[in-house]
Amino acid sequence: MGVWMRSILWDAESQQLRLINQLVLPAELRYLEIKTFAETLEAIQSMAVRGAPAIAVCGAFALFFAAREAETQDIAVLLETIRNAREELLRLRPTAVNLQTLTAQMLRHINSFDGSTDDLKAYLLEMALEAAERDVQTNLAIARHGAELIHDGDELLHHCNTGALASVDYGTAMGVIRLAHEQGKRVHVYVTETRPWLQGSRLTAWELQQYGIPYDIVVDSAAGYLLRTGKVDRVLFGADRVAANGDVVNKIGTYLLALAAYDNGIPAYSAFPLASVDFESANANEIKIEERDESEVLSLSYHGLPTAPVGARARNYAFDVTPHRLLSGLITDRGILYPPFFRNLSVLRQYGREE
Amino acid sequence: MGVWMRSILWDAESQQLRLINQLVLPAELRYLEIKTFAETLEAIQSMAVRGAPAIAVCGAFALFFAAREAETQDIAVLLETIRNAREELLRLRPTAVNLQTLTAQMLRHINSFDGSTDDLKAYLLEMALEAAERDVQTNLAIARHGAELIHDGDELLHHCNTGALASVDYGTAMGVIRLAHEQGKRVHVYVTETRPWLQGSRLTAWELQQYGIPYDIVVDSAAGYLLRTGKVDRVLFGADRVAANGDVVNKIGTYLLALAAYDNGIPAYSAFPLASVDFESANANEIKIEERDESEVLSLSYHGLPTAPVGARARNYAFDVTPHRLLSGLITDRGILYPPFFRNLSVLRQYGREE
Repeated sequence: MGVWMRSILWDAESQQLRLINQLVLPAELRYLEIKTFAETLEAIQSMAVRGAPAIAVCGAFALFFAAREAETQDIAVLLETIRNAREELLRLRPTAVNLQTLTAQMLRHINSFDGSTDDLKAYLLEMALEAAERDVQTNLAIARHGAELIHDGDELLHHCNTGALASVDYGTAMGVIRLAHEQGKRVHVYVTETRPWLQGSRLTAWELQQYGIPYDIVVDSAAGYLLRTGKVDRVLFGADRVAANGDVVNKIGTYLLALAAYDNGIPAYSAFPLASVDFESANANEIKIEERDESEVLSLSYHGLPTAPVGARARNYAFDVTPHRLLSGLITDRGILYPPFFRNLSVLRQYGREE
Repeated sequence: MGVWMRSILWDAESQQLRLINQLVLPAELRYLEIKTFAETLEAIQSMAVRGAPAIAVCGAFALFFAAREAETQDIAVLLETIRNAREELLRLRPTAVNLQTLTAQMLRHINSFDGSTDDLKAYLLEMALEAAERDVQTNLAIARHGAELIHDGDELLHHCNTGALASVDYGTAMGVIRLAHEQGKRVHVYVTETRPWLQGSRLTAWELQQYGIPYDIVVDSAAGYLLRTGKVDRVLFGADRVAANGDVVNKIGTYLLALAAYDNGIPAYSAFPLASVDFESANANEIKIEERDESEVLSLSYHGLPTAPVGARARNYAFDVTPHRLLSGLITDRGILYPPFFRNLSVLRQYGREE
């Protein structure tokens, strides 16, 4: 196995969370030390930590922090505090479903908790630590399935950041690329810069350098050119939420990439843990798309000059919907799903329930 | 008629060219004073001036400068100097065809020139001035045809910069929007920022502010979201070169926009002067796509931090090909063409020859 890079670490001695601060990468590798509920909220809101799986695990620790800060000895009051903390968390980043799924699961586990408030706090920490560990194992499973799709010599096109930084370690779509590389397959990655937040050029390029995987950055718009001129063998990206029919909600721009891949007969895959599937949504059209502050679009500078006129306005849609018809397969921790996605996802759901 | 904004002016007194310096917009409106062939080359190479029609007119003045600088009294030597100057110009920006067409036309006119070297120099200046004036008239003709497609209340999506800054004045696709606005139609424009050079957020947004047309900047990737969610009525862009079958070579990203428009049944139009048509190319697949320096992709900064790791590499394809099947119409100075474009373009060509 290659390089490890935990982006979310629990420091048992100081009882605090250490997160790679994604706001200062790639200039600097610096950890944030997080020890309160408010600090966790701030890290998620500012995108010091981002990526659907990473946000979910931070959210699990946030529930522990919220409980730790509560002074009550009344278990019912403490449970109410935790439920309120969860509501606050969910408002921060409405599109990704992993946080919702994981914290809902935690609440179900403590709903009829029988013990002291201290026991409950300890149990929350235990669940958060388990979630972090499970994330890595899930990503390794995604990678093992997905790496079978990658051939020696492949030219890959990857959108946004889906690596260790977007999760606890290893990543989803990036995990597939890492494992293929570790298996000795020669791959080269075209990294879309991923405006506005530049997850591709700031984070994915930096991760690929750490792993020794060759890459070139391209502007998001160049994906069409690469796909039309036969420069790409496979397109890979993650998912922030997947509907029951296989529609994928992911970083803005994913739809255009998948559309151009489809138009040129090049396979496009979304890689994600089964926890990213929202079985309550029949398709992705009703899923709420987060609109973020316009400053993310307007605050670039280019050779020291501003990139928009004074008084300019922008709209900043963070995600888009890729209809399932454009996807060749869904790479999950339970295996690769092929169309019809609706049927194959519902089989997996059934299988999950029976475990 | 609304605001005028000549981006290319001939100063008869000082016998020099004044160009709006597009490298410092939108921070500052500053003119470059150009009086030599070398300075014109530098302005085109650095993209202080850009846009297929604007480059063509600057090229016409460049031929005059090259002749003015020649000390020979031998007309054959002077003609050779001008031909060599043209070759140098064409190497700078290989994709746009307008420069090629206009300077070829000038060479045909002087090929059997009968007069002194001073007469030839004066004739070159006259042709350059005529080309500048013709550019504005051509753009007004494009605008008059295209404005008929725009309805009151339209939401438009526009890529790159096709305005006064990309031409001598008025612009191509932007001219259509300007005239519709001047006709009293209420329009709102989604301006793609147009990475890597940010022609949209730096130049188009600035122009729209001058004209009082409401707009919002979006990242290029957001075009898919806007089109899929019904937020756009019409897509407009220019062309750097059009093949005989109607394939459009234009700023990188145009293909993705047209693909998403087509996928959602929203009309997409390319607006250009007939001089942008390369009848020698049956389709656009063989047209040379300029690859520019990677620094344009890598030299952004975001909140004062670099946007790519030290040592990162990038590929910077400046244009892409939009297959004609994705286009609803071609807006030219001779009218709007509908499919089959091959037949309708060849009719226009015939008509042009007969004039």
